[in-house]
Amino acid sequence: MIERAWQEEFIRLFGQAGENVINSTKVSKDEVSLLFDEKSLAKTIDHTLLKPEATPDQVKVICEEARQWHVASVCVNALYVPLVAKELAGSDVAVCSVVGFPLGAMGAKAKAFETAYVVGEGAQEIDMVVPIGMIKAGQWQAVYQDIVAVREAAQGKLLKVILETCLLTDQQKVMASWCSVLAEANYVKTSTGFSSGGAVLDDVALMKEAVGSHAKVKASGGIKTREEAIQFLQKGASRLGTSQARIILGKTK
Amino acid sequence: MIERAWQEEFIRLFGQAGENVINSTKVSKDEVSLLFDEKSLAKTIDHTLLKPEATPDQVKVICEEARQWHVASVCVNALYVPLVAKELAGSDVAVCSVVGFPLGAMGAKAKAFETAYVVGEGAQEIDMVVPIGMIKAGQWQAVYQDIVAVREAAQGKLLKVILETCLLTDQQKVMASWCSVLAEANYVKTSTGFSSGGAVLDDVALMKEAVGSHAKVKASGGIKTREEAIQFLQKGASRLGTSQARIILGKTK
Repeated sequence: MIERAWQEEFIRLFGQAGENVINSTKVSKDEVSLLFDEKSLAKTIDHTLLKPEATPDQVKVICEEARQWHVASVCVNALYVPLVAKELAGSDVAVCSVVGFPLGAMGAKAKAFETAYVVGEGAQEIDMVVPIGMIKAGQWQAVYQDIVAVREAAQGKLLKVILETCLLTDQQKVMASWCSVLAEANYVKTSTGFSSGGAVLDDVALMKEAVGSHAKVKASGGIKTREEAIQFLQKGASRLGTSQARIILGKTK
Repeated sequence: MIERAWQEEFIRLFGQAGENVINSTKVSKDEVSLLFDEKSLAKTIDHTLLKPEATPDQVKVICEEARQWHVASVCVNALYVPLVAKELAGSDVAVCSVVGFPLGAMGAKAKAFETAYVVGEGAQEIDMVVPIGMIKAGQWQAVYQDIVAVREAAQGKLLKVILETCLLTDQQKVMASWCSVLAEANYVKTSTGFSSGGAVLDDVALMKEAVGSHAKVKASGGIKTREEAIQFLQKGASRLGTSQARIILGKTK
């Protein structure tokens, strides 16, 4: 599925390091078998509240839900990381912060600072947005360097790279996935939820094929039902970003 | 038009400083008379390109147009400030960067860093987004401190504070305008162009009434024609954020 011409371009750009990434794209299907167990399903979910008008009280509510439902993380804007870290202390739920969100156009230095800031405040997972304009311009070294800057600032924390797939061609999705792996990201993620489209099943499959066993895939944007959630997991996603955890996990009010 | 109860709340929150802001809301109409002169109209426009997929080549095009048309500024994401500063060197057009854009939820420290970064790279004007969740929660001290952090990092540069009016009540628009004045912002600005609504004539009038002669108003989001542009200027806007400068200024391709 992944075209040879794209692979050659990536190897031309990044040499042996690029070749190493591409040469090991064996997809592990191990996780998929766990998905229909309720506990495992909850642990795929990043319980997400990113709308700019969210208040501290609303953030506290999703933290309490996250504790009860044992989801993977609570994902918020940087402003709320100190509050979420406090609310989730002692729980099995990670603190996840977005960085450079949602446009990805703030520059590597500002993203690195924001990352170091949220890590200092207790973030254990970082969901950054790539510089989309650099992808569109084919400036792959700049894309890679941008991710590297955040990777370094994030120290050992889990790093997810949001590609905003609705704005990219298939080639750009694959090349950006490879850049993410090369920069030692842990996940590639489909969408911010703030652009013209969200997660698409074919994109998840394509990204999983591109990253192989080097990284995982997070599907995000518009995932509203349990059926959709399971479809994305079956396509190779290991994590789901959604504000609809209550519905997906079948919790009543 | 501005309710006494809101004034009392602001004075209760900010004491004598709040009272000083409110007690001098005399609107100067001087600028409006200049608006129909072509040269003055161009100098009200921030020629804007903020979509995340914008490429360096597209940014260069708007810089060249900005030079020819003698607009007020070129407004871009932080990533492109070094490029815009280079392209506009020696011109009469200012370099304008957005900060904390478009959600305003990255926290004061990250906004201050981003501001210092773009000022160091040549930005002369800063368009920051307020922490909208803090407004919704009525945490006005936090709103004020967020703006102050950027004001300090921006040194003497022109500071515009984006309220994202489509998400606010009228009281919140007025109180956020007062916070901006108290923090010594130069402008209050209506919209990011990335939320559920853009500039509205009544909002511009309300914001102008709130800031009086202490600050100016920038209308932004959805301004597409010369007629609309002039209406916003007549309502009290001094600056217009738009990607439609070509149409508004009547320039042919």
